[in-house]
Amino acid sequence: MTQALTPAFTPAFPPIQDLHDATLSAHLQALLDNKTKPLGSLGRLEALARQIGMIQGTLSPHLDAPQMVVFAGDHGLAARGVSAFPSDVTWQMVENFLAGGAAVSVLSRLHGINLTVVDCGVNHDFLAGLPAGAVRPGLQVRKVVGSEHGTADSSQQPAMTPAQCAAALQQGRQLVQGLAGNVLLLGEMGIGNTSAASLLMARLVPDLDIAVCTGAGTGLDAPSVVRKTAVLREVLARHINARQPLEVLAAMGGFEIATMVGAVLEAAVQRRVIVVDGFIASSAVLVAHALEPRVLQRCVFAHRSGERGHSLMLQHLGAEPLLDLQLRLGEGSGAALAYPLLSAACAVLRDMASFTSAGVSEKSGSVEAS
Amino acid sequence: MTQALTPAFTPAFPPIQDLHDATLSAHLQALLDNKTKPLGSLGRLEALARQIGMIQGTLSPHLDAPQMVVFAGDHGLAARGVSAFPSDVTWQMVENFLAGGAAVSVLSRLHGINLTVVDCGVNHDFLAGLPAGAVRPGLQVRKVVGSEHGTADSSQQPAMTPAQCAAALQQGRQLVQGLAGNVLLLGEMGIGNTSAASLLMARLVPDLDIAVCTGAGTGLDAPSVVRKTAVLREVLARHINARQPLEVLAAMGGFEIATMVGAVLEAAVQRRVIVVDGFIASSAVLVAHALEPRVLQRCVFAHRSGERGHSLMLQHLGAEPLLDLQLRLGEGSGAALAYPLLSAACAVLRDMASFTSAGVSEKSGSVEAS
Repeated sequence: MTQALTPAFTPAFPPIQDLHDATLSAHLQALLDNKTKPLGSLGRLEALARQIGMIQGTLSPHLDAPQMVVFAGDHGLAARGVSAFPSDVTWQMVENFLAGGAAVSVLSRLHGINLTVVDCGVNHDFLAGLPAGAVRPGLQVRKVVGSEHGTADSSQQPAMTPAQCAAALQQGRQLVQGLAGNVLLLGEMGIGNTSAASLLMARLVPDLDIAVCTGAGTGLDAPSVVRKTAVLREVLARHINARQPLEVLAAMGGFEIATMVGAVLEAAVQRRVIVVDGFIASSAVLVAHALEPRVLQRCVFAHRSGERGHSLMLQHLGAEPLLDLQLRLGEGSGAALAYPLLSAACAVLRDMASFTSAGVSEKSGSVEAS
Repeated sequence: MTQALTPAFTPAFPPIQDLHDATLSAHLQALLDNKTKPLGSLGRLEALARQIGMIQGTLSPHLDAPQMVVFAGDHGLAARGVSAFPSDVTWQMVENFLAGGAAVSVLSRLHGINLTVVDCGVNHDFLAGLPAGAVRPGLQVRKVVGSEHGTADSSQQPAMTPAQCAAALQQGRQLVQGLAGNVLLLGEMGIGNTSAASLLMARLVPDLDIAVCTGAGTGLDAPSVVRKTAVLREVLARHINARQPLEVLAAMGGFEIATMVGAVLEAAVQRRVIVVDGFIASSAVLVAHALEPRVLQRCVFAHRSGERGHSLMLQHLGAEPLLDLQLRLGEGSGAALAYPLLSAACAVLRDMASFTSAGVSEKSGSVEAS
């Protein structure tokens, strides 16, 4: 399967640049150190400012036309009862996103973030009844499979074929090529997709049992989590030979996750700032990272999700998220909530006065407390 | 001293209402539970939405004309070398706030928060050279002592007299009475004020040694923290009989902290949302809480500061802060950074669709994972 996927994949994506630049990093640090504040006193906001400066290759980074993309898809595995909600909720929530009533809609609007929903393979025709060629504002239909269906049931067969996986990556790539701005915020919707994310994690992170990767998702009770874990263990056993990142993605991922992987890779090529939401968005980054570790240089992890497994996944990626508010909604809600911290980091770097410019005395040399 | 202060204090402040209202609380919870999201999935943002709803006594809270107030004052104790920066930095930073170049200026501007700096007793005349009656935009001169000086050196005598303490409280009260809007964000500036905050904490929180209350402030090295701790231990011994909250405040506090205590009490009376910044702002809330525990119902703790002692202080107050970004700048910078989370909490409550209004299916009853 690697052979089938890799050639289709590799040529499509230009190389992802290493952003390491000791000179720029030192200049950014010096700039921060000369701002009117005690050294290092803005804590993690300073690291964030440096990271965004490095991504943009500038001492005065700015965030332009931020784009929240909600990748939506259905999962054949949902037929196995791995979610507390019926699959119909996927399309119903897409309608809710478009109508502006979902959390990610409200939070994106609040913070001036443009919202696009991408149908990567929802069991629904969002254009039904509309004339051919019609579009709906805020929606992009990029179904990996032409008709109205999501992935196959991965407990019976691979969730997608190699060709479908490659097509999803390509859709993600093209999507990002058409987006304005320099910030991509990752959101998702898909009943059953915590299962797909848990499966990707269990296979791609060494030495983890599926039990530590599996959580309550949208709200399973404890016995249901036990049943979900058993189903996922069965899926892993069925795909025991899937080991390479794209094999794993095709065998057990989702169309929305595969499309997101393509989007992450393209955003990384373009040096966009990538704001990673919770468990499912992180699983897409996990796959992208397995393909090309440099994507992480562009990623800002928005929050530590309440979903079991997310902390371990973040740890594997060496990621320290900005917020820890016990969110477990997905959709991109955590990414939208964290976004003002990115704006703040840029504003500090750009707009704060230096000790010299403000005429403020610097720290004393040695301090006596007699 | 209690006798001297209490009568001056008590009549000035109307009683602070208990906001406990089981019916409203249940209604707010029901409203959140019917939003299109898994139950409880917005985590601490939901608790924040409930709190703001309770403060405002409404199911649709909104934040109006948020006011950042930076309380500034100098400390006689600074002469003992307890800070890494010279006292002149207090007035220099006030000028920086007014010029818009400080962190709190930049962050307040970014988030649409109005900024007012209050001179509670800075060793400087900000109106020097201006005609009598002149004002400076963004500055309120409310010096507790008419001339240009801060508190007395608390290692030699009480930092302020009972009358000065009462006057500071009154200044804080009047200040808030003149502010627009329904949100008060607490900021401060005063070289030496981590020392004052540590002293208040060591005396008002039971069973704490001054060593666990004393940190690096603006950036002392380890030996300097040891020297600072020794000075503070000496101050505590000198004021061994100061035990009541206002006695403690007068003996070892600062003019900016005392004015902030008055502002907190008045904001609580008015049921404003109070956004508490870091270590020093929390120490003012600590004093206000000791006088009237109900102030806490109005307080949102913005962040856990990197300053040693803040975690223990928060624990004593039963407070769980929103952010944990290793900030240790003060000024109100953490409060400004957390502010968008408050806006988000209100927006969720007001603007998100319900399952019914959006036509989204609810959670299944029992879930089978066969």
